[in-house]
Amino acid sequence: MSDLLSLTFAALADPTRRAILARLSNGDATVNEIAAPFDMSLPAVSKHLKVLEAAGLITRSRTAQWRPCHLEAGPLKDADGWISAYRRFWEASFDRLDDYLRQLQAGDPEKTN
Amino acid sequence: MSDLLSLTFAALADPTRRAILARLSNGDATVNEIAAPFDMSLPAVSKHLKVLEAAGLITRSRTAQWRPCHLEAGPLKDADGWISAYRRFWEASFDRLDDYLRQLQAGDPEKTN
Repeated sequence: MSDLLSLTFAALADPTRRAILARLSNGDATVNEIAAPFDMSLPAVSKHLKVLEAAGLITRSRTAQWRPCHLEAGPLKDADGWISAYRRFWEASFDRLDDYLRQLQAGDPEKTN
Repeated sequence: MSDLLSLTFAALADPTRRAILARLSNGDATVNEIAAPFDMSLPAVSKHLKVLEAAGLITRSRTAQWRPCHLEAGPLKDADGWISAYRRFWEASFDRLDDYLRQLQAGDPEKTN
């Protein structure tokens, strides 16, 4: 499970880590700022940040003393690229639902093809 | 980690499971057909299928004796929906790269803003 795409998906497989990324989408933040809305200890939050950092989803400044965390979208782009290959499947499902709803609106669905 | 989105991302966090989904994107397949290209035992493949099934990414026919597996795109659509909220970040990165490359083509980047 050492490939980057697997690391990315594994990092996203946790609601707290997804909430941290959502927080960072509003701007860089320190560990304390990230931890504030969660009922979690700082070490627990730090553990989540390490998982996100290992997957390349966040970086932490080495210069500023408070080491703010920064969202890195590259791995999300790769994950999106993988998933997008399957887009035709759910778009096809919606097309079929559209057809069915149109048949219903047109009258008795038993009489339509 | 019992929410469906977490289950989906966890199921995708494995190259074998992603390869199984890729196989099923070409059509329904039995466990034997799915296992064929992998150097894995049938029980190992079955374990992966159970993870995919628990996440709702595949369903297995209850009528046909050979119980073919079928790709279900719904959870992928939800995962795509979550990731798409971050699209502006990587699109912004590419816009900046575009600007930079245009500056390079225009001449000395030192003279540009």
